[in-house]
Amino acid sequence: MSAEPGARSDLLAGLLPTAGPDDSPIDALLVTDLINVEYLTGFTGTNGACLVSAGRRVFLTDFRYAERATAIEGWETEVISGQWLEGLAGRLEGRVGFEDDHVTVRTAGLMREAAGNAELVAAGGNVERLRRVKDEQEIGRIAAAAAMTDELYGLLIERGLAGRTEAAVDGWLTGWMREQGAEPSFPLIVASGPNGASPHAEPGPREIGRGELVTVDMGVRLDGYCSDCTRTFATGSESELDDLSRELYETTLKANEAGLAAVRAGASGSAVDEVARAVIRDAGYGENFGHGLGHGVGLEIHEAPRLGPSSEDELLTGEVVTVEPGIYVPGETGVRIEDLVVVGPDGVDRNLSTVTKSLLFV
Amino acid sequence: MSAEPGARSDLLAGLLPTAGPDDSPIDALLVTDLINVEYLTGFTGTNGACLVSAGRRVFLTDFRYAERATAIEGWETEVISGQWLEGLAGRLEGRVGFEDDHVTVRTAGLMREAAGNAELVAAGGNVERLRRVKDEQEIGRIAAAAAMTDELYGLLIERGLAGRTEAAVDGWLTGWMREQGAEPSFPLIVASGPNGASPHAEPGPREIGRGELVTVDMGVRLDGYCSDCTRTFATGSESELDDLSRELYETTLKANEAGLAAVRAGASGSAVDEVARAVIRDAGYGENFGHGLGHGVGLEIHEAPRLGPSSEDELLTGEVVTVEPGIYVPGETGVRIEDLVVVGPDGVDRNLSTVTKSLLFV
Repeated sequence: MSAEPGARSDLLAGLLPTAGPDDSPIDALLVTDLINVEYLTGFTGTNGACLVSAGRRVFLTDFRYAERATAIEGWETEVISGQWLEGLAGRLEGRVGFEDDHVTVRTAGLMREAAGNAELVAAGGNVERLRRVKDEQEIGRIAAAAAMTDELYGLLIERGLAGRTEAAVDGWLTGWMREQGAEPSFPLIVASGPNGASPHAEPGPREIGRGELVTVDMGVRLDGYCSDCTRTFATGSESELDDLSRELYETTLKANEAGLAAVRAGASGSAVDEVARAVIRDAGYGENFGHGLGHGVGLEIHEAPRLGPSSEDELLTGEVVTVEPGIYVPGETGVRIEDLVVVGPDGVDRNLSTVTKSLLFV
Repeated sequence: MSAEPGARSDLLAGLLPTAGPDDSPIDALLVTDLINVEYLTGFTGTNGACLVSAGRRVFLTDFRYAERATAIEGWETEVISGQWLEGLAGRLEGRVGFEDDHVTVRTAGLMREAAGNAELVAAGGNVERLRRVKDEQEIGRIAAAAAMTDELYGLLIERGLAGRTEAAVDGWLTGWMREQGAEPSFPLIVASGPNGASPHAEPGPREIGRGELVTVDMGVRLDGYCSDCTRTFATGSESELDDLSRELYETTLKANEAGLAAVRAGASGSAVDEVARAVIRDAGYGENFGHGLGHGVGLEIHEAPRLGPSSEDELLTGEVVTVEPGIYVPGETGVRIEDLVVVGPDGVDRNLSTVTKSLLFV
């Protein structure tokens, strides 16, 4: 375990004076979402919680993880025997914030029954806000996940696409990830020909032909952290690809590059989206780009901030976000090009996606 | 779409007089859990809800699924534009049950704000109770998923295990599933030698040797429905395997067979567990079987009922459950043998797991 989890809990404790509803103070914060628990402690089991107050940081788990819990630095550990929720609630005192955006109505009711005089108040989102900005260790892990994804793209380019089914390509890619000890950070997309017109196509039995576009959207989760990268490839020889496909590709690439150029700390998620969207709109495909430009990536494949027309987020130095414009023409084909980048004070600090964006015929 | 989803919503409507808190009546049930929505309608998108009252069944979704929604038989469909939760809540009237075991505190608060005079009351678990007993179509789908898993076991047995890493075997198995258009119903377990002593071991870089036991626990999700099957294999030649491994295998197999013989409608989940557990306890390994005997399988890999020492469920005809005793000896090795069976009135109606349980050297 590194020292970072302890530092993160210090940051969290610093929020207690304003972490309650309407920025009211709370005495302690109970963190039960397992991704948030992993962020604070490094713990990756299926049952654990954190209780953070000004003076104490307690990690709670059950007997199955008693041994693993002792390895968590910077936290007192307590093992709850018997009923989990009663054990948790029985340890609460004063005004305690809980993650109202993760805890179900039923679970909250059971905790309140068992909480005695402690008052449970809504305080979700505090850990997620901390998670937006990544520290060096986190960026290193995301970069490692991105590097593994890029290596796999290299193998894909070598091996080629035409003549195999989408599902066969997916199986090969997913299997390779598992073989490396990683897992897909989401179900892969391998969308060929007309299937590329659907942003969230599922790989199917369609055999990939020649003279087609194929959109591959994939990432791994490695050491807890996710990567995300999309490339659209052509198949066959250059003479086999139609003009529409080339035009869509060139426009999407320009939008990707414009979006990347607009990323910087202080820029709003809606403004960055608009820069890329304008390129696509000006080319006459405004109606064919039906999703937001990007999203944060970290322990989860989709997390804050959001880059999109209705985003109210402002980018911060150290955030890791995707820039992924696309154009989808129903019945014809589609293109998406996605990079994963670290936000810097004056622009992209580092583009973690190193696979070429020149149109490759594979 | 088959007729079943309509029939299921009729069953659900029949529950309204007692579906509220303390078996009180409600005017309508709002179903938002996506697995429950899939059960009722066959819909598999990322946003949808069902509103069931005595006279109406309404399926709600957003513009992305407007076209797909029209294919759902037996339901009126409404497309919500604008804010999803406000659109949902604005359609509620009277005393409406919601899934308090799935809906977060925050979401429930937002819905209540937008619900006007409608009263939202806790009514979770109603669809899950319907889901326990599978109809013929569901059993057919689970059987198809089990058959695909068994086919993969056949390939695994042909190809052998020794000399490959656990992760490589996992990658090959997972990739094959994806290639068939299925997905793993849970992250596979390939636990070799001493790793087999952990019931939930993750496949790792360990190279599988000769004269070892290897526990493989896998299943696919196909057409919505899950399968689940565990076999423990030996590697090398018969003379290379130690006596402890043989003893654990034979005892676990006896426990599996005893558990299967005890499965029937009307038996309690705790009684069936005890029959299998007694075999392991009598052999001196009672402390080495630290999990329950089994669980229901359907749209989810773990669902009701539960077979275990503290289960309060009673088995019903048409339930599909696992029977999976195991013995885990820390530092040494482990065995688990799991079948997936359909509960019948007088015993197992059908064992969906057809892979041999004779100890194979592969």
